Amino acid sequence: MAFVPSARSQALQQQLTEFMTTRVLPNEARWLAENHRLNGHGDWQRWQLLPELQALKQEAREQGLWNLFLPDAELGAGLTTLEYAPLAEIMGHSLLAPELFNCNAPDTGNMEVLYHFGSPEQQARWLTPLLAGTLRSVFCMTEPEVASSDATNMAATIERDGDELVLNGHKWWSTGLGHPDAGIAIFMGLCDPDAERHRRHAMVLVPLDTPGVTIERMLTACGDYDAPYGHGQVRFDQVRVPADHLIKGWGEGFAIAQGRLGPGRIHHCMRCLGAAERSLALMIERGQQRSAFGRPLLKLGGNLEKVAEARIAIEQARLLTLQAAWKIDNHGVRAAMTDIAAIKVVAPRVLQQVVEMAIQLHGGAGLCQDHPLMGFYAQARALRLADGPDEVHLASVAKLELKRRGQS
Amino acid sequence: MAFVPSARSQALQQQLTEFMTTRVLPNEARWLAENHRLNGHGDWQRWQLLPELQALKQEAREQGLWNLFLPDAELGAGLTTLEYAPLAEIMGHSLLAPELFNCNAPDTGNMEVLYHFGSPEQQARWLTPLLAGTLRSVFCMTEPEVASSDATNMAATIERDGDELVLNGHKWWSTGLGHPDAGIAIFMGLCDPDAERHRRHAMVLVPLDTPGVTIERMLTACGDYDAPYGHGQVRFDQVRVPADHLIKGWGEGFAIAQGRLGPGRIHHCMRCLGAAERSLALMIERGQQRSAFGRPLLKLGGNLEKVAEARIAIEQARLLTLQAAWKIDNHGVRAAMTDIAAIKVVAPRVLQQVVEMAIQLHGGAGLCQDHPLMGFYAQARALRLADGPDEVHLASVAKLELKRRGQS
Amino acid sequence: MAFVPSARSQALQQQLTEFMTTRVLPNEARWLAENHRLNGHGDWQRWQLLPELQALKQEAREQGLWNLFLPDAELGAGLTTLEYAPLAEIMGHSLLAPELFNCNAPDTGNMEVLYHFGSPEQQARWLTPLLAGTLRSVFCMTEPEVASSDATNMAATIERDGDELVLNGHKWWSTGLGHPDAGIAIFMGLCDPDAERHRRHAMVLVPLDTPGVTIERMLTACGDYDAPYGHGQVRFDQVRVPADHLIKGWGEGFAIAQGRLGPGRIHHCMRCLGAAERSLALMIERGQQRSAFGRPLLKLGGNLEKVAEARIAIEQARLLTLQAAWKIDNHGVRAAMTDIAAIKVVAPRVLQQVVEMAIQLHGGAGLCQDHPLMGFYAQARALRLADGPDEVHLASVAKLELKRRGQS
Amino acid sequence: MAFVPSARSQALQQQLTEFMTTRVLPNEARWLAENHRLNGHGDWQRWQLLPELQALKQEAREQGLWNLFLPDAELGAGLTTLEYAPLAEIMGHSLLAPELFNCNAPDTGNMEVLYHFGSPEQQARWLTPLLAGTLRSVFCMTEPEVASSDATNMAATIERDGDELVLNGHKWWSTGLGHPDAGIAIFMGLCDPDAERHRRHAMVLVPLDTPGVTIERMLTACGDYDAPYGHGQVRFDQVRVPADHLIKGWGEGFAIAQGRLGPGRIHHCMRCLGAAERSLALMIERGQQRSAFGRPLLKLGGNLEKVAEARIAIEQARLLTLQAAWKIDNHGVRAAMTDIAAIKVVAPRVLQQVVEMAIQLHGGAGLCQDHPLMGFYAQARALRLADGPDEVHLASVAKLELKRRGQS
Repeated sequence: MAFVPSARSQALQQQLTEFMTTRVLPNEARWLAENHRLNGHGDWQRWQLLPELQALKQEAREQGLWNLFLPDAELGAGLTTLEYAPLAEIMGHSLLAPELFNCNAPDTGNMEVLYHFGSPEQQARWLTPLLAGTLRSVFCMTEPEVASSDATNMAATIERDGDELVLNGHKWWSTGLGHPDAGIAIFMGLCDPDAERHRRHAMVLVPLDTPGVTIERMLTACGDYDAPYGHGQVRFDQVRVPADHLIKGWGEGFAIAQGRLGPGRIHHCMRCLGAAERSLALMIERGQQRSAFGRPLLKLGGNLEKVAEARIAIEQARLLTLQAAWKIDNHGVRAAMTDIAAIKVVAPRVLQQVVEMAIQLHGGAGLCQDHPLMGFYAQARALRLADGPDEVHLASVAKLELKRRGQS
Repeated sequence: MAFVPSARSQALQQQLTEFMTTRVLPNEARWLAENHRLNGHGDWQRWQLLPELQALKQEAREQGLWNLFLPDAELGAGLTTLEYAPLAEIMGHSLLAPELFNCNAPDTGNMEVLYHFGSPEQQARWLTPLLAGTLRSVFCMTEPEVASSDATNMAATIERDGDELVLNGHKWWSTGLGHPDAGIAIFMGLCDPDAERHRRHAMVLVPLDTPGVTIERMLTACGDYDAPYGHGQVRFDQVRVPADHLIKGWGEGFAIAQGRLGPGRIHHCMRCLGAAERSLALMIERGQQRSAFGRPLLKLGGNLEKVAEARIAIEQARLLTLQAAWKIDNHGVRAAMTDIAAIKVVAPRVLQQVVEMAIQLHGGAGLCQDHPLMGFYAQARALRLADGPDEVHLASVAKLELKRRGQS
Repeated sequence: MAFVPSARSQALQQQLTEFMTTRVLPNEARWLAENHRLNGHGDWQRWQLLPELQALKQEAREQGLWNLFLPDAELGAGLTTLEYAPLAEIMGHSLLAPELFNCNAPDTGNMEVLYHFGSPEQQARWLTPLLAGTLRSVFCMTEPEVASSDATNMAATIERDGDELVLNGHKWWSTGLGHPDAGIAIFMGLCDPDAERHRRHAMVLVPLDTPGVTIERMLTACGDYDAPYGHGQVRFDQVRVPADHLIKGWGEGFAIAQGRLGPGRIHHCMRCLGAAERSLALMIERGQQRSAFGRPLLKLGGNLEKVAEARIAIEQARLLTLQAAWKIDNHGVRAAMTDIAAIKVVAPRVLQQVVEMAIQLHGGAGLCQDHPLMGFYAQARALRLADGPDEVHLASVAKLELKRRGQS
Repeated sequence: MAFVPSARSQALQQQLTEFMTTRVLPNEARWLAENHRLNGHGDWQRWQLLPELQALKQEAREQGLWNLFLPDAELGAGLTTLEYAPLAEIMGHSLLAPELFNCNAPDTGNMEVLYHFGSPEQQARWLTPLLAGTLRSVFCMTEPEVASSDATNMAATIERDGDELVLNGHKWWSTGLGHPDAGIAIFMGLCDPDAERHRRHAMVLVPLDTPGVTIERMLTACGDYDAPYGHGQVRFDQVRVPADHLIKGWGEGFAIAQGRLGPGRIHHCMRCLGAAERSLALMIERGQQRSAFGRPLLKLGGNLEKVAEARIAIEQARLLTLQAAWKIDNHGVRAAMTDIAAIKVVAPRVLQQVVEMAIQLHGGAGLCQDHPLMGFYAQARALRLADGPDEVHLASVAKLELKRRGQS
């Protein structure tokens, strides 16, 4: 490999793979079934954590497989984006894994925001327990009433009233809102509607027990509540928080969002590719085990060509993602803009393509709760919309292409 | 239109459209939400029917919009396959609709089997209440332990023991098994393993309360239980039924299955196209209502081209399906084999393509319970596997193509 | 088949198939090679007709397989669009065939224009020899300097000067211009730039030997000159023709062009489908004859699935084209607008897809002059641009879709 | 970029880009037209070189832009595969370029064979003039009568007869055979039919003027002769050459072919990507210059999304190709097998996709001799078959995937 990972990253890869192979994957089916049994309903207030998973989380922490995403060497693992990327991929092999290593979205993104832009008080109150895995957080940006692909459509507002900030708005797709430990939200809203386009928004920290915060319901994503995380719809009605709950500064919301995106995209995309690798492995395994018309399924018709197409697609997407990571580390997020937009389109698309093939080869089994495939499908499908739909990112790539050529 | 429907069919189309437009679609979102609230969990024994839907069913029956699928003029509507096809499409606009008109799968197929092959006693006991909509039925063919795309893999057995038949087997994807009114199953199994390949199986009627029948669980299909129907996994352990529960004859299972397929495929496919039409309508509506970057979503990028692609794909698939119906009516199922295999691939694929576009244009809303889109996705995705995966039907088309040319 | 052809059409289909099978296809390879040898260069003034083909043309005429496209019962065969469609498909099996039956584009379209809109004098002078196959014609619309997909870009002009019309313009892709018998052009230009958008253009008949008409060169289409027809680039510099060379009327150019399109599209598309059928037949034949790794190529990997996909795609495209023909005959071109735009996209796309597969299965042979495949590819590729690119027709389909829903 | 090129490679990239930008691209259209005028016919014996190009070749040589592909520091530039890859891409921008720098296939591959495996005498006689650009060579492997995708199908034979080798066979797609300077062929044939599968073939050097060598004709590739190179069909009938014309050894043909493939694939693929970059540039340029419906073509419909898709596809394919190069350099051809097979599928496919889009946006212009686009199309299309069709390489990728997992 050319994007050669450091010795540190390689060692962690090995350790993480070991953990996944021995502790996570052999139990995954059982945990998924148990979670399904306990939490497979929309009454999110009754959702609960699997005790066994909580215990394993403790073990991961003790092994140092904890907060690997955070570039700070003391609070986290101090890895570069490129060093962390292969670790995110390994975690991506199971939807249950990221939380075990305290690397679950949107907590990772929120922790990064607090780490980079939070005041010492904000960090002490929220970053510390998040890093300890005892608190869970949500990110409130998307709104049900407008096309959120265009940030200027955002209707939620943040107003100053003396020492307080007053928040109003209706948000949804706030992932993690149903989690028993969810306690804090980052709320994005319009603070200065007449300012220059990228200076109109602010981000504010809102404890979820603040009066005026009403969790209306959880949304299903591709038929599933993703319990015990959930995707929440929440109303903020004259919610008041102290002015020091503002993150970074008035009008800085867009800049924070942008900064949050770079490494977060790498994480999301590498997890997708891990899920794609797992789907391919499951497809090959199933295709060898089951037979029809006298041959293993894998040898029938164009199935082997599909295996090859999956391998080729994954390989290319991974290289593009690693290149984006490398550029972020070496030349900054701005220099990596095309790649960051491109992988946001490519990685979930590749996962969708591979998981689609894998489902088809599994037959009915691929559609149901017995396999992680439909979960991977939902991951891909949702990611093609979350943080901007494919179309917005393709438009960015095209715009940058024309700009690079001195045209517009 | 060239496959000109009869005046009778046209009148029914108009009546049905009126019913859908005034009674079904305006209430669909509410019903879906209510059903989700009541039945959105895996404990199928607590699933219940929506009283309002039951009432509407009665109304449909009174209007004569009842059992339209059945070619018998007295028991059903006496329509040809081609006459019924556009009605199936109209019902396909809502996943809630087919049941309202007593045209829901797998009951339609099972009623056809009983109608064509059932003994008078079998008809009296099971066909009559099925036609009345007071009984629900399931079809037990697919098995979890083998690749069911190859019928010779079937492991379930049917043995004679004096005046009784003894059934053993493990089945899944028995749709409707969770329904409160589900009472009877058609069970397919090996009865004569050494016979010629197409004479090895039999079909037997099994009341669901027969000792030895154990419903193990319901499966999720694309994350959803499809309550209150459900897709069941069920074990048959030394299940004994009287010998007169055999349908048609010993070794006739495959022939019945084949006969069941022709018109059933038309129904499935036309419902898919109805769902595709609805998805397209929703996509256009949403695309006009929501704006981003100063323009309605529909006018952005390649979205209008996607509308056109959807229209073209639906139109072609519908013509192919109507041609299949026409051939079945005029030349028999055998003459329509290529078309029947072809539409089984094309119709769900078109639905998947169109609903995919529609979801993308809806943003997050398209993924969640607020819209019927994910339900349509699941319909398409499951149908690409049910009754044989795409690959099996493509192989049939190719085989028939070579045969037609005198090659093999 | 449901778009049941009349007995007359069926008899002609049989007769035409016989002619193709016994007289055309067995000689095709030899004729293609001979034509290649004689005319495989860009010096169009030396292009010549194959004497053998000229003789066969006579034979076709004697058998009544002549001018089948013309709906006039005396001058042509008096067939409806739907009756002619399957004949066009049969001719489409060989690129050499349409001329044999005097059904070659653009002559067919030009004859239709003269038939419907020509004055008796115009008909006597040009339609009669065209119908006799002794004269060849061209159509001068597209221009090299502008995007011709937008008709309002047209720069060529037609001005009145007393009893004369003065034409100026630069045209290209005037198919047939290199043919030894080419003698007359239909020239389209702006005559009234300030009129309403669809009343600005006129069409004028221009004998090719009129002073001021300069044939600059022939264009290659996908590497080939299509000799002895050719695609010409031609300059009209102060070209003067008598005023009675105007077709139909001042400002009627757009209306004529629209009327010319409907049936012409059917012809083009059915020929494409004939070419696709031929490509599929060649693919199957080759795939059976040649072996690799111990099996016929056709049985390797996903090749049989490709055969099935080709069959399905052709079948659907044919039905859509027949539906368009049926609508034109029964409800007029306006009622068939969506279908006409749709098939313009679908038919060449299907041909391109099928010929692509066929080439791949032929290996190097598929790329070279030994097989008609690259010619079919060029036919498909060019048709995706001629008479408007795919994108323009997709836009039409979308526009009509929105209009049908009362939106825009 | 992460596969960081050396300073040496970077300097050459700059120098080469300068040469392309100032000397090649501004004259390309004129040269293509002139070549078309002079050599646009199938009579290959009259083909001639453009004097202007010959002069420019001399200039390239003087600037040191010569034999850059050869890893030998004295005879060539001494670059690694990874260092040369970006240079091959730059040359790929014009089909006329590789020859200017003496880096044209199949000469590069043949020179590599002679460099690695040729005897001192063979090198003196043929490698030296090839390196000087005064001799041209061909490679005779593919045969018209069999499916050459399976090497064991090869029918050509090599027999020993005393001090001579006797060659018999029929070969085609011998690129360069029509070139005025073509003088030497590498002929591959069966020498030991009963040996182990990979030890059956040998390669022999055959001067083209040896008695028994008959050039039968040139083949068109996608309608074009590729004059003055040409793709020849040639018969070897009892051709006798001295035994020392054998390359490397008896039974070594397959091994030589394999060794020839690694770096050659990189060259081919990078040239494809250069052609794809050029196509994209042409597409953007045209799309900005031409307007329809009041907007630049590039802003219409989904065109900008196509630009983005092209950028993303190229970027991924380039990374995969560079990874393959890197692996070859650092771990050997064997370690790069999956990547080498993968890029053989991906790179021409990306070129075909991008050039397809570019042609569509160019309208008719894209189809004809005025633009290099159809040439790029032919390059892509032919490469999807040359050196094994896509299907063979996909099968290799799948086989290696299963092997890697300890399965088969």
